[in-house]
Amino acid sequence: MELKICLIGKGNVGTCFLQLLKEKRHMIKEIYNCECILVAIFEHDGAIINKDGIDLNELLAKSANFRKNLFWKKDVKAKGLISELGINLCIETTPTNPNTGEPALTHIIEALSNNIDVISSNKAPFFLYYKRIKDLAEKMNCFIRYEATVASCVPALSIKRNLIGNKIIRIKAILNGTNNYILSRMATEGISFAVALKEAQELGYAEADPSLDVGGFDTAGKLVILANELLGWSKSIEDVKIEGITKITPQALELAKIDGYIIKHLAIAEENNLIVEPRLVKRDSPLNISGALNLIKLQTKHAGSIIFMGKGAGGLEAASAILNDLINIVIERNKIRHN
Amino acid sequence: MELKICLIGKGNVGTCFLQLLKEKRHMIKEIYNCECILVAIFEHDGAIINKDGIDLNELLAKSANFRKNLFWKKDVKAKGLISELGINLCIETTPTNPNTGEPALTHIIEALSNNIDVISSNKAPFFLYYKRIKDLAEKMNCFIRYEATVASCVPALSIKRNLIGNKIIRIKAILNGTNNYILSRMATEGISFAVALKEAQELGYAEADPSLDVGGFDTAGKLVILANELLGWSKSIEDVKIEGITKITPQALELAKIDGYIIKHLAIAEENNLIVEPRLVKRDSPLNISGALNLIKLQTKHAGSIIFMGKGAGGLEAASAILNDLINIVIERNKIRHN
Repeated sequence: MELKICLIGKGNVGTCFLQLLKEKRHMIKEIYNCECILVAIFEHDGAIINKDGIDLNELLAKSANFRKNLFWKKDVKAKGLISELGINLCIETTPTNPNTGEPALTHIIEALSNNIDVISSNKAPFFLYYKRIKDLAEKMNCFIRYEATVASCVPALSIKRNLIGNKIIRIKAILNGTNNYILSRMATEGISFAVALKEAQELGYAEADPSLDVGGFDTAGKLVILANELLGWSKSIEDVKIEGITKITPQALELAKIDGYIIKHLAIAEENNLIVEPRLVKRDSPLNISGALNLIKLQTKHAGSIIFMGKGAGGLEAASAILNDLINIVIERNKIRHN
Repeated sequence: MELKICLIGKGNVGTCFLQLLKEKRHMIKEIYNCECILVAIFEHDGAIINKDGIDLNELLAKSANFRKNLFWKKDVKAKGLISELGINLCIETTPTNPNTGEPALTHIIEALSNNIDVISSNKAPFFLYYKRIKDLAEKMNCFIRYEATVASCVPALSIKRNLIGNKIIRIKAILNGTNNYILSRMATEGISFAVALKEAQELGYAEADPSLDVGGFDTAGKLVILANELLGWSKSIEDVKIEGITKITPQALELAKIDGYIIKHLAIAEENNLIVEPRLVKRDSPLNISGALNLIKLQTKHAGSIIFMGKGAGGLEAASAILNDLINIVIERNKIRHN
């Protein structure tokens, strides 16, 4: 089969994906009998479009200049053009407004409406309009995958299939590496939130404007997707009770420590409620992870707790999650074709 | 579709599976359009066989006596009969000789040879004859699943699919809850191996004959399956360098502690080698789990380490892994039929 791909957004994640695709497309051809043809790459100010397939070696050569590519077209937008490209997979990695989900939402809707499978690393469309997107994908018989949106490369969403005979009852998770790094440093060094935040910014763990992280909004968005996917809910970010980490003091951490506890910023889904807030966690609890890791603890009906952890951020990590999604779509499409 | 099932072995795992099947078969019918019909249950001294389907409510009633069931036949063996039952799924949970893999090996081979899918919670056939079994399953176009053999309900094997675009480079794991419990107690209480073992036996964590556990053989068997599955190897238990935990002293643990380390019994697959031995692990390492948990740490090429943990033993846990396997086979068979 031929997989004709359009990538929207060539930031860190998009660029890492192109590198992975270059590295893996021969394996995908050999093992899954699928030729990956990159037809278009959209950026905010234009696009490279080549229906015969963009030359990945040329594109990713050290000397290459993206906007001087022979097929670069200035000011071309993805919107309205997605259905014209003859593609069967749209990969969405644009910088997206967390309040509206745009422009990713429009791209996703347009792709699905035109019978094109979608992979997204953008979470806003899913924590805002989960049911709308899923219903459309089902109606159009399209695959939509978004593993990278929650805990990046940790298979937090696709794990549902592995546990399909079990029943997930409750989720407790640490879904923001920045916040976990800050709290870990405050606890071990006795420093204030402001100092730990500055350190995290200098190390590149925190953004220049850290409010979406430390305020809890980023965690809440991921929690919505995780709970909808694993518990079968249809909630949106408005349903989450959110409290950030900005009011936590070294004194509070010290008091907790005396009693054998630590304060963690937890995302919790239980009994139809979604909660993001600082919680006391026992020092020897598996939830007490340090540094910028993510962790997901699933309380199951038949097999106690099952815990997953790993890096929750990073361009290559997210790109590897996208590639996992891509190959899984290829496997499913192959089955549909061959049977 | 109709799934006609034969269960071989009605011990703890087998009985828990029957309970789960009773609980879930209506859901399986409703969601996956698959009628689960239990045709036979084999025990060492006979079998219940009913080609119209064994009544699970009657079988599992509190007052029921297994060997007084109307369809009980004394001295009937599974061997030679598997192909006569008209089944399409054979579930293997017998007590099996770890040196020969029997009787599970014979049952598995007979089922696959007759085009019957197999789920096994028995690991010996797989750490002894992995390639032979896999090759036969492939030749016969049959599904063979054995998630319960490694870390029970933790999806240690099926996770390969979730990480299919990534590359797993190295595995470090804790695969025996008994050993981990013993080492944890020795470290925290300063007690000897003998005392900790006795405690583990009293709590039901360790067998009356603990040699397969504490000698490292059980861990080695699981490591073979894990490495073959996730790294694409074809090794057997003879390829594992094995050292148990019997020689570890409280003094060694104390010395390690002074330098910030703890001793863990690790299963390691790296650079074409399989190793089971006690190793020093930093106290703040994610590998430092306490109690009877299992943990699997996968070093990946594109996304750092990904870690999974959960209960590695227990009848219901293993049965839930079997049910996961069963539903996944149903999903795959449905795809083959519908396309």
